[in-house]
Amino acid sequence: MMPPFGLLHRRAWASLFGQLLRPSVLVCIGEVHFHSQVSEAVLISQLKPHQEKSNFVIKTPKGTRDLSPQQMVVREKILDMVIDCFKRHGAKRLDTPAFELKEMLTEKYGEDSGLIYDLKDQGGELLSLRYDLTVPFARYLAMNKVKRMKRYQVGKVWRRESPTIVQGRYREFCQCDFDIAGQFDPMIPDAECLKIMCEVLSGLQLGDFLIKIPWKDVRHEMVAKKGLAPEVADRIGDYVQRHGGVSLVEEMFQDSRLSQNKQALEGLGDLRLLFEYLTLFGIAEKISFDLSLARGLDYYTGVIYEAVLLQTPAQAEECLSVGSVAAGGRYDGLVGVFDPKGHTVPCVGLSIGVERIFAILEERMKTAGLKIRTTETQVFVATPQKNFLHERLKLISELWDAGIKAELLYKNNPKLLTQLHYCEHMGIPLVVIIGEQELKEGVIKLRSVASREEVAIKRENLVAEIQKKLSES
Amino acid sequence: MMPPFGLLHRRAWASLFGQLLRPSVLVCIGEVHFHSQVSEAVLISQLKPHQEKSNFVIKTPKGTRDLSPQQMVVREKILDMVIDCFKRHGAKRLDTPAFELKEMLTEKYGEDSGLIYDLKDQGGELLSLRYDLTVPFARYLAMNKVKRMKRYQVGKVWRRESPTIVQGRYREFCQCDFDIAGQFDPMIPDAECLKIMCEVLSGLQLGDFLIKIPWKDVRHEMVAKKGLAPEVADRIGDYVQRHGGVSLVEEMFQDSRLSQNKQALEGLGDLRLLFEYLTLFGIAEKISFDLSLARGLDYYTGVIYEAVLLQTPAQAEECLSVGSVAAGGRYDGLVGVFDPKGHTVPCVGLSIGVERIFAILEERMKTAGLKIRTTETQVFVATPQKNFLHERLKLISELWDAGIKAELLYKNNPKLLTQLHYCEHMGIPLVVIIGEQELKEGVIKLRSVASREEVAIKRENLVAEIQKKLSES
Repeated sequence: MMPPFGLLHRRAWASLFGQLLRPSVLVCIGEVHFHSQVSEAVLISQLKPHQEKSNFVIKTPKGTRDLSPQQMVVREKILDMVIDCFKRHGAKRLDTPAFELKEMLTEKYGEDSGLIYDLKDQGGELLSLRYDLTVPFARYLAMNKVKRMKRYQVGKVWRRESPTIVQGRYREFCQCDFDIAGQFDPMIPDAECLKIMCEVLSGLQLGDFLIKIPWKDVRHEMVAKKGLAPEVADRIGDYVQRHGGVSLVEEMFQDSRLSQNKQALEGLGDLRLLFEYLTLFGIAEKISFDLSLARGLDYYTGVIYEAVLLQTPAQAEECLSVGSVAAGGRYDGLVGVFDPKGHTVPCVGLSIGVERIFAILEERMKTAGLKIRTTETQVFVATPQKNFLHERLKLISELWDAGIKAELLYKNNPKLLTQLHYCEHMGIPLVVIIGEQELKEGVIKLRSVASREEVAIKRENLVAEIQKKLSES
Repeated sequence: MMPPFGLLHRRAWASLFGQLLRPSVLVCIGEVHFHSQVSEAVLISQLKPHQEKSNFVIKTPKGTRDLSPQQMVVREKILDMVIDCFKRHGAKRLDTPAFELKEMLTEKYGEDSGLIYDLKDQGGELLSLRYDLTVPFARYLAMNKVKRMKRYQVGKVWRRESPTIVQGRYREFCQCDFDIAGQFDPMIPDAECLKIMCEVLSGLQLGDFLIKIPWKDVRHEMVAKKGLAPEVADRIGDYVQRHGGVSLVEEMFQDSRLSQNKQALEGLGDLRLLFEYLTLFGIAEKISFDLSLARGLDYYTGVIYEAVLLQTPAQAEECLSVGSVAAGGRYDGLVGVFDPKGHTVPCVGLSIGVERIFAILEERMKTAGLKIRTTETQVFVATPQKNFLHERLKLISELWDAGIKAELLYKNNPKLLTQLHYCEHMGIPLVVIIGEQELKEGVIKLRSVASREEVAIKRENLVAEIQKKLSES
């Protein structure tokens, strides 16, 4: 796999740093100075609609933010890698509306339901912004009577949480979900979901990670569903927690207290199966059990899992509470809630916590002094002479029509130095220079910004020469 | 340029057709039968929350829809082409939240303001869903005191319009915007915006199109801003409408009634400049004037433009009101509305009407019987034997780790025929087959689904051989 930021350059470091340090939430303007409270400022602004314009606060809503071009570049690289992995596992892409009928979301999120954004009743339906991508997926399956589907979805979701923005928690954030719906032989789709988590986290080179399964859930499954005696379940618990899951099967089979108990063997069946598959996938040692993990959202049935990073950069630990970077589990009952006859479709899936991953990688780039190019411009069209706008426009049009990414300054008579500085500032690798002399001789100068070398090439070979240069670099 | 649907296969035709014909808005379930009105069904369902579950209606909100995997494939191909064009012109990507403070949107859209979706007051700020991407961009510029920026943004916007879904109008839809903010020499960014419109529409091969500038606006500019006598402006109007803009300059200069009038010459200055640049860009003949076009949203200043398709497939004309497929214009005053001191940043931009383009291309694919693959799976891992799940899992894991897109059936003992049918149905080109015999000999059978040819290859060369096969096709 390629390092995820192979294309980045050192120059953007300063601007990235500036972005990260800038308090993007509150921009105080005008003579009135507000204190630290964003909400106070907004309240004042909203209570006094007829006040002087100079007193209003321009900001994004609480817990939301704009994403700068620098942030968008990082984000798109990460999303591309995640989507690539989802496609590698045969998933189709689905999209659902940003809002759902309010009743579709009620009773799905337990005590978190208070965090759902409702739309104002404007004389139509009662609507709410989606809270995750899982409930809309289940609604889609039930509505279209789909019994089997491997799909991914990438999109924003909204939660009215108390925003603690320094820790990277927002009220609007992106989710990347992969789910397998359908009745299949046990544990095969579950193991694939864990494999996908590992592939994404390895691919993004976030450092060591571990996927934790809450032992509490597993124990509950064994006791409630398989009828295992609680004390036997606890004995199994001793094992899986001590050994982290890796050498689980052999160890437990060597323990006569377990291997002689028929129910214990049955209760261990799914776990053993899962770890067999995880071993075949080469990821068994990445999976562990954790007594401390709490259950997730209300719709989960059975085992859930969560991936945590084991090491984070020292700096990141200061300002980011990293925690879980991916989570998932089985929700066999959710589709049935939507189906009028209660017909259900078993589902298992995962969600990549891309916002935390964005934050970690932005932080790391800061530390490493990585510079990000925010445009992909390949060629700049420049002139050292006055009154050459027409020639520049003709030339750049030729480049655009050939699919070459090109820019020029929107000035009739820009200075050559200004034009060259722009290229250096923006990281544009090539400059095409046209002037009186070149026009007369039917040539164009092609300049490499890095080496400052210039070569004269025939005007008619321009596109071909540029394409050659670009393919070499 | 490549044809936009080079990767599509014929087999998806049936399913695409099914998607398009399926009434995706209302799914009536249970014993209660509603009439044609969606709203009635919803009203009943929402007024009776305690009714039997079998009476509720599973649907997406009025004017919204899910996008099926087939639709997502078409959509992503179109968006990729549009974004590619925006990047070719040096634009950076920006993202803004789905909702803004309500006050940011008020007084920006004139009589359309009633179509804004407001969020419910849940004890925080008053919020509204964004209505377009232009106002958030202007807010971003003012908030961050950005004086110059070439940016693009792709995202959903929401408008509470009466949905006429057969005509392809939705309450949630995607916009693709490109804008140039900053003080530059006249008409250069404007001409580039028109060039971009032409590149996008040509690239998507939608057929002949024309970009229309409303003459009413141009006349207003000349009379109000340049002080031209209305009757002289009307004389110019006669010209530009008759000639559609192409041979405008020469014609008007030959008309002594115009060339002898100093103000007329001045008034013609910008127009002439624009057409000079459009000629250099090779697109002058694509631009025309239209007396009938109404002004757009409230924030536009000066000239706006709109691209219309000249021909649409006969079938599309029946069920789609195609109309404008791209629009844009200058809005020099908008940033100043947000700036507390009224400092303004001149802007010009365009928006591609991707929803209409999606609808046209889906329609066209229907007519052409094009089949869409909804997954990108390259290899399927199959076995003719029982108890080969472990081998299949080990094998597919190897493929995934090598970056190869691979699938298998989630069954312990699937039939070979079922596995091969799956490949044909899904358009997967290659099958890897492993059985007793192959295991013994240390080989794998590699089968081409199309030709049904099978070759035995050494197990250790598997990944290399597959990569070779895939690069050949």
